[in-house]
Amino acid sequence: MSNKKELLWASRFNEPFDEGALKFSSSVHVDGKLFREDIQGSIAHATMLGEEGIITREDARQITTGLNEIEKEIESGTLVPQWEDEDIHTVIENRLKEKIGAVAGKLHSGRSRNDQVATDTRLYMRAKVNELHTSLTGLMETLVERADTYQSSIIFGYTHLQRAQPISAGHYYLAYFNMFRRDRQRLSDLMQRVNISPLGAAAFAGSTLPLNAERSAELLGFNSIFSNSIDAVSDRDILIEFISACSIIMMHLSRFCEDIILWSSYEFGYLEISDAFSTGSSIMPQKKNADIAELIRGKTGRVYGDLMAMLTIMKGLPLSYNRDMQEDKQPLFDSAETAISSVTLFNRMLQHTRLKEDRLKELTAKDLSLATEIAEYLVKKDIPFRDAHRITGRIVSWSIEHSTPLPDIPLDTYKGFSEVFDEGIYLALTPEASINSKKSHGSCSFESVERQIEEARELLG
Amino acid sequence: MSNKKELLWASRFNEPFDEGALKFSSSVHVDGKLFREDIQGSIAHATMLGEEGIITREDARQITTGLNEIEKEIESGTLVPQWEDEDIHTVIENRLKEKIGAVAGKLHSGRSRNDQVATDTRLYMRAKVNELHTSLTGLMETLVERADTYQSSIIFGYTHLQRAQPISAGHYYLAYFNMFRRDRQRLSDLMQRVNISPLGAAAFAGSTLPLNAERSAELLGFNSIFSNSIDAVSDRDILIEFISACSIIMMHLSRFCEDIILWSSYEFGYLEISDAFSTGSSIMPQKKNADIAELIRGKTGRVYGDLMAMLTIMKGLPLSYNRDMQEDKQPLFDSAETAISSVTLFNRMLQHTRLKEDRLKELTAKDLSLATEIAEYLVKKDIPFRDAHRITGRIVSWSIEHSTPLPDIPLDTYKGFSEVFDEGIYLALTPEASINSKKSHGSCSFESVERQIEEARELLG
Amino acid sequence: MSNKKELLWASRFNEPFDEGALKFSSSVHVDGKLFREDIQGSIAHATMLGEEGIITREDARQITTGLNEIEKEIESGTLVPQWEDEDIHTVIENRLKEKIGAVAGKLHSGRSRNDQVATDTRLYMRAKVNELHTSLTGLMETLVERADTYQSSIIFGYTHLQRAQPISAGHYYLAYFNMFRRDRQRLSDLMQRVNISPLGAAAFAGSTLPLNAERSAELLGFNSIFSNSIDAVSDRDILIEFISACSIIMMHLSRFCEDIILWSSYEFGYLEISDAFSTGSSIMPQKKNADIAELIRGKTGRVYGDLMAMLTIMKGLPLSYNRDMQEDKQPLFDSAETAISSVTLFNRMLQHTRLKEDRLKELTAKDLSLATEIAEYLVKKDIPFRDAHRITGRIVSWSIEHSTPLPDIPLDTYKGFSEVFDEGIYLALTPEASINSKKSHGSCSFESVERQIEEARELLG
Amino acid sequence: MSNKKELLWASRFNEPFDEGALKFSSSVHVDGKLFREDIQGSIAHATMLGEEGIITREDARQITTGLNEIEKEIESGTLVPQWEDEDIHTVIENRLKEKIGAVAGKLHSGRSRNDQVATDTRLYMRAKVNELHTSLTGLMETLVERADTYQSSIIFGYTHLQRAQPISAGHYYLAYFNMFRRDRQRLSDLMQRVNISPLGAAAFAGSTLPLNAERSAELLGFNSIFSNSIDAVSDRDILIEFISACSIIMMHLSRFCEDIILWSSYEFGYLEISDAFSTGSSIMPQKKNADIAELIRGKTGRVYGDLMAMLTIMKGLPLSYNRDMQEDKQPLFDSAETAISSVTLFNRMLQHTRLKEDRLKELTAKDLSLATEIAEYLVKKDIPFRDAHRITGRIVSWSIEHSTPLPDIPLDTYKGFSEVFDEGIYLALTPEASINSKKSHGSCSFESVERQIEEARELLG
Repeated sequence: MSNKKELLWASRFNEPFDEGALKFSSSVHVDGKLFREDIQGSIAHATMLGEEGIITREDARQITTGLNEIEKEIESGTLVPQWEDEDIHTVIENRLKEKIGAVAGKLHSGRSRNDQVATDTRLYMRAKVNELHTSLTGLMETLVERADTYQSSIIFGYTHLQRAQPISAGHYYLAYFNMFRRDRQRLSDLMQRVNISPLGAAAFAGSTLPLNAERSAELLGFNSIFSNSIDAVSDRDILIEFISACSIIMMHLSRFCEDIILWSSYEFGYLEISDAFSTGSSIMPQKKNADIAELIRGKTGRVYGDLMAMLTIMKGLPLSYNRDMQEDKQPLFDSAETAISSVTLFNRMLQHTRLKEDRLKELTAKDLSLATEIAEYLVKKDIPFRDAHRITGRIVSWSIEHSTPLPDIPLDTYKGFSEVFDEGIYLALTPEASINSKKSHGSCSFESVERQIEEARELLG
Repeated sequence: MSNKKELLWASRFNEPFDEGALKFSSSVHVDGKLFREDIQGSIAHATMLGEEGIITREDARQITTGLNEIEKEIESGTLVPQWEDEDIHTVIENRLKEKIGAVAGKLHSGRSRNDQVATDTRLYMRAKVNELHTSLTGLMETLVERADTYQSSIIFGYTHLQRAQPISAGHYYLAYFNMFRRDRQRLSDLMQRVNISPLGAAAFAGSTLPLNAERSAELLGFNSIFSNSIDAVSDRDILIEFISACSIIMMHLSRFCEDIILWSSYEFGYLEISDAFSTGSSIMPQKKNADIAELIRGKTGRVYGDLMAMLTIMKGLPLSYNRDMQEDKQPLFDSAETAISSVTLFNRMLQHTRLKEDRLKELTAKDLSLATEIAEYLVKKDIPFRDAHRITGRIVSWSIEHSTPLPDIPLDTYKGFSEVFDEGIYLALTPEASINSKKSHGSCSFESVERQIEEARELLG
Repeated sequence: MSNKKELLWASRFNEPFDEGALKFSSSVHVDGKLFREDIQGSIAHATMLGEEGIITREDARQITTGLNEIEKEIESGTLVPQWEDEDIHTVIENRLKEKIGAVAGKLHSGRSRNDQVATDTRLYMRAKVNELHTSLTGLMETLVERADTYQSSIIFGYTHLQRAQPISAGHYYLAYFNMFRRDRQRLSDLMQRVNISPLGAAAFAGSTLPLNAERSAELLGFNSIFSNSIDAVSDRDILIEFISACSIIMMHLSRFCEDIILWSSYEFGYLEISDAFSTGSSIMPQKKNADIAELIRGKTGRVYGDLMAMLTIMKGLPLSYNRDMQEDKQPLFDSAETAISSVTLFNRMLQHTRLKEDRLKELTAKDLSLATEIAEYLVKKDIPFRDAHRITGRIVSWSIEHSTPLPDIPLDTYKGFSEVFDEGIYLALTPEASINSKKSHGSCSFESVERQIEEARELLG
Repeated sequence: MSNKKELLWASRFNEPFDEGALKFSSSVHVDGKLFREDIQGSIAHATMLGEEGIITREDARQITTGLNEIEKEIESGTLVPQWEDEDIHTVIENRLKEKIGAVAGKLHSGRSRNDQVATDTRLYMRAKVNELHTSLTGLMETLVERADTYQSSIIFGYTHLQRAQPISAGHYYLAYFNMFRRDRQRLSDLMQRVNISPLGAAAFAGSTLPLNAERSAELLGFNSIFSNSIDAVSDRDILIEFISACSIIMMHLSRFCEDIILWSSYEFGYLEISDAFSTGSSIMPQKKNADIAELIRGKTGRVYGDLMAMLTIMKGLPLSYNRDMQEDKQPLFDSAETAISSVTLFNRMLQHTRLKEDRLKELTAKDLSLATEIAEYLVKKDIPFRDAHRITGRIVSWSIEHSTPLPDIPLDTYKGFSEVFDEGIYLALTPEASINSKKSHGSCSFESVERQIEEARELLG
């Protein structure tokens, strides 16, 4: 029989809860993860109750001691939560009752499952937002370091996956630096909404007991307390906001992964991933796959799915609490853990990649992506931009037809396209000249990249 | 050190695979669920290899025996897959090697991880499609039975959550019968695409060995074999189609749950859910909550999320196999299990609900939802429909203002609205008359419901 | 022939662009909406170019005059963008060339389509974020006003759609106030990331011209300028963040709509929506539907869909710009407009609803939701909480069986359940007493609601 | 005043409908697209009513004539639907009344807006499913033709975007053939559920008139009629199934687009897209972008978003009709049109691409992807597979270190790795030999490809 353990709410019921239904509704396998937060929240509540004289200090002490022991029991595997217990909160309550008897019941004074769960969830989120923030900082540090290392290396800048213009490799890494910087900002913004205590809201209407919500919040390190008891227990907007922030992080990572997969392909061949972060094939011995990048790109789908799950769950629910909301934990946990492990491992993989600078130097020196330089050269010679573009287009066609890189086309040929050409064109037709010619703020020029690195370092402190 | 066990693909690599990376990419905790399918597929492959003389019959026998033992070891918990093993396939391979030595390697003849995984996944899907089909049939049977039981009971039909017209309760249940019938059809349609063997496609290009793909397919009970080896290992469209079918099932369930939650609210009060499928409140002793219905409604989000995950994972992946696809199993397993358990438990809960027929009888007899009868009465008296609608609107207003139900309005008052009224109006103004007045095919009339029940029974066989 | 108008990029191409392809890729019907932003951005760019001496002041003046005229032409319908023009930017450029000749070409100095579009989009978003912020403020004002009006009215607080405890209606409205307050915060946080100028990033690498990005940003009212030119044109994270914020707003509205639909049903019957915001039925004259609430609830799907669209579009795209991103505007525009119009209209509808206070007063006075008061009464009489809960459960069962509301149960009967009962129980068993008994912060008590209203008013300023 | 035109349902309402609310709820701008279907459905209904004697034949004739005229008026732009008319159905009804007077009202006999809209939607879907089916057939024909043209051309087969093994280009195209073939099957399966008439279900309960639903279905070309009147008007599962089928098609296209974008990059350089389907850059004259492929890949997000919208809209709605469902048309129309235009244009673009066979020939001849041949060569010389793999891994490393393609490594060197090597290795080390060595069903061998082409042609008929 499943209902060995007492269910808290069954006082006026004649039939036992169906075993299949209990199994279906049991959430221990998911919310078991929250045992530390649950115990931490309960200790804070008990402490406050004791201090306010709602229960005796001795009762508070017994409860606290019992809970601390239970934490150790779960950690050590002595106490293994069972699905029959419905959820982790019941596991802990029942165990506490076993340990300290009827006093355990006093822990419920002025607290409901609703504000208890909301508190646990916020404690979990706060920790995960912090972890993710830290892992993003680590990635940003790697990016600045790489931007520094490769600031004078030249790579192709792409649009539409076509070589567009040569740029400093540093500039490329700093683009991602800026994306993750905004991701980190989003987490900081979110934290203001997360770090608020819902404890004391009870089921949704507040309590008849003179709870000191400020005090329990303080004990749990919350910055402030809820304003409205219904709102405190029945909204899940901050979970959605968090999973949305995770989704954007994964989106950014998926793009970075795509670049890494492309660049480490044979055809691009610009990037070497260390063996420690590559895999091979059981059938094709020559393969070296960017599996980690592929996996992270794939996990983007997982987090997007979590977001959609959470949005769907909350759609159209009447106030205040509905059981549907129990389904919030799976997507929350999954997205938090996926985002944190993806950022962390991506960072380590990135540290184990190497740009093939020699190959890049060679390739960029002779590439059609210098064509923009010709157009700009012509503009400086007072050719209207549209005409310059047209002339350059014809030179590009000639270069392709004659398999002659732009820097190798003879001056006479250039003059055939426009008489304004002179020897100066060859000075313009190097990737370095192209990059250095950029004069605008935040550009790909070596000078701009140096300045960006300095600012990035200041930001990281 | 994590790489205790040999990784199959590492022959030309100088550095060991990073432990964190291995942990991140290990999928044992997910695909461990496929151990039976994996062993089943391997046995079929080995048998075929033996029959075709690609390996000796003795080798095939050894492999089969070993695999059968491993299945029992995993089932009994003697062999516990570890994350260091990367995936369940490696777990089984390594164990097989331990058991039967070098012969184990011959199992790889003409097979790659790609067609192996594709085979396992299809075996899993086939079983789950069948299970889901069966559980839908069970639910359909319950619905016909309820339609039968309640065919002469009267409930309100709603549009916009406003009482619209009285209908036979049987008609209501048969509406859902039709929805789940289409859901079942979708699974049957899908099965034609699922029950096709990909075994023999190898990595994606086929094999140099004269494999008999027809034979291994036959051994596994597949209906037919793949046409193109690339397609066989690199598409996941049938997974998406399956999760989409699950999403539609959950959508249907979520609506049914909404009805159940509403009807079992105090305000509606039409439906009693047995205590065995209700929960109470730890703080509010009077509560009796339709938790199971709420949970299933919430789990709809979960399956929608799985669908979005799978769609995202596959978006924009180049041919053929990419590691991103490893992320397909979590959403597949989760949606299959959620849909099956939701349909099954919903069915049992539904069997434990009871319409409060007396209350419904009383309420429907005096309700404004009889207003349509007045309009139709007037139309039969040759009043143009628009005018009839207008007159009825005025009578409704009068009824509300004077708190007088429509059947209780005196004839003189009716005549004041239109002189065509006579005593006959009172015959029309009963829910039974309203329902019986429906003459069109598939309508809510008792006669139509009886016919529908017969047809439904025939369909179920 | 479709290519009547010159395509800007076709200089080296031999064949004309396919007409079907042009039609498929034309975005005029979508981005036509941005004509004002595009002209505003171009004027700022031209002004800066003139001030910096990159073009002459006279050229800048001509360009500005021409653009101002074009804005009026489009507004007045004299100039109607055609799909052959590919996008609104080309429409305006081609028209400018017609008006002022070759000088028009100088507008392209140091600017690419990429930073141009990014600028237009940010100008659009800034306006929409502000509009949405304003409409949320309007809704918050209505909520405070309603909380004030109804602060001493009593409604049922629900969990699991079951009557749980009586609460002040003001408390209910303030719960939503807090949700929309966080929604507004999210927009403010986002604004810091939106109000940054990308103008000057050119295609993605910066420009060879000494552009003054600070100056054009200032002219456009941006707070700051981009840090990295690749990032400036190739990310769309702020669009996703915005649509996510809109999704959460819609989620909140969908819940509020659900409540309104429920409460205005015949069965609940607590809320009257004015005829001006209800619709009827062409067939059932008695119907009065909360269509607007249903529509807004439905539109939630639309915005969720926009979010998923935008997330999918960006997944796995290599740096920097890819044409996929052109698809960003449809979801952006749709979600912005849907959210703004939904909040605005919801606010007006809410102002046209009325709580049926008399009916609520009557219903709450006799309801089982007073059961919690019995439990708390017992706790105050030193009965342990669990026992109190159990006793109350039995009283509730008795009340249902004997159809006797809790306040009408004789004292002797109460004493039969527990001897601690005395006359005091009847003082506790009123909704007012229940509400006033709440002592905790942020609770549903009248006093707490009054305090919350004051704080809300302060917040709104 | 907004309510210039009569609203059908307003008979008992005292206040006019709010203008803002009307604008918000007006759907003319969306459902205006359905005017033909609406008129077609109305004519069938009127014809049936006339035949059954429910209205006179003369009335039916007048209605039909009027409707036919209105269709022409809308087509020619004489009648322009206005938002004040709420929806296209009201536009047509009001105009019919203007044209033929009170008789127009008889069209409503036994029909509600609910079954009317459901009928229109199914007529629209049927047409779009057919169009999409046809466009998929077109694409499949192109694929067979290309497979035929390129069957003896050699390309790289990729896994993890790493060159894996050389394959026949025909095999590659046939992989996509199989994907689109399943997509087409899905549409055929769906059609059985779409091509069912809901006409005669009225609001949801059926009608008091002896409608002949079989006859109106026949007139509209439906295969069968609804079983249950509630189900007929209140489900939207077939819309979701359709958008899901469109999503899978877009997923397949997005992968094909990715391949095309990659292959037409400078780095891969295997594919030439005709100028007619490429675009250039206004700033970088050398660029030639696969814009159409990028756009289609981007539009995948749009259709995924439509799916999520529709799933969300339907989640948790009580039976039967709710106004939320009005939001179904935008995602339906958008996904249908996006999928059809994407398949159609993709097909045309594909016809305008050319594989660079010479370049591919050269590249595949010297590539490391021949390594599998070495391993298989060794296996045939009785080296166990795992050892063969290991030896090959070492040869691959040597080849990379010494920049010597596998076919150019001297025999002595080979012998250094294993003494079983002889001259035969060079015969194995050609892409042709590699491809021809495949003996399994459905493989990439030239012979298998030829057989697949034949079967594909048979399938297409």
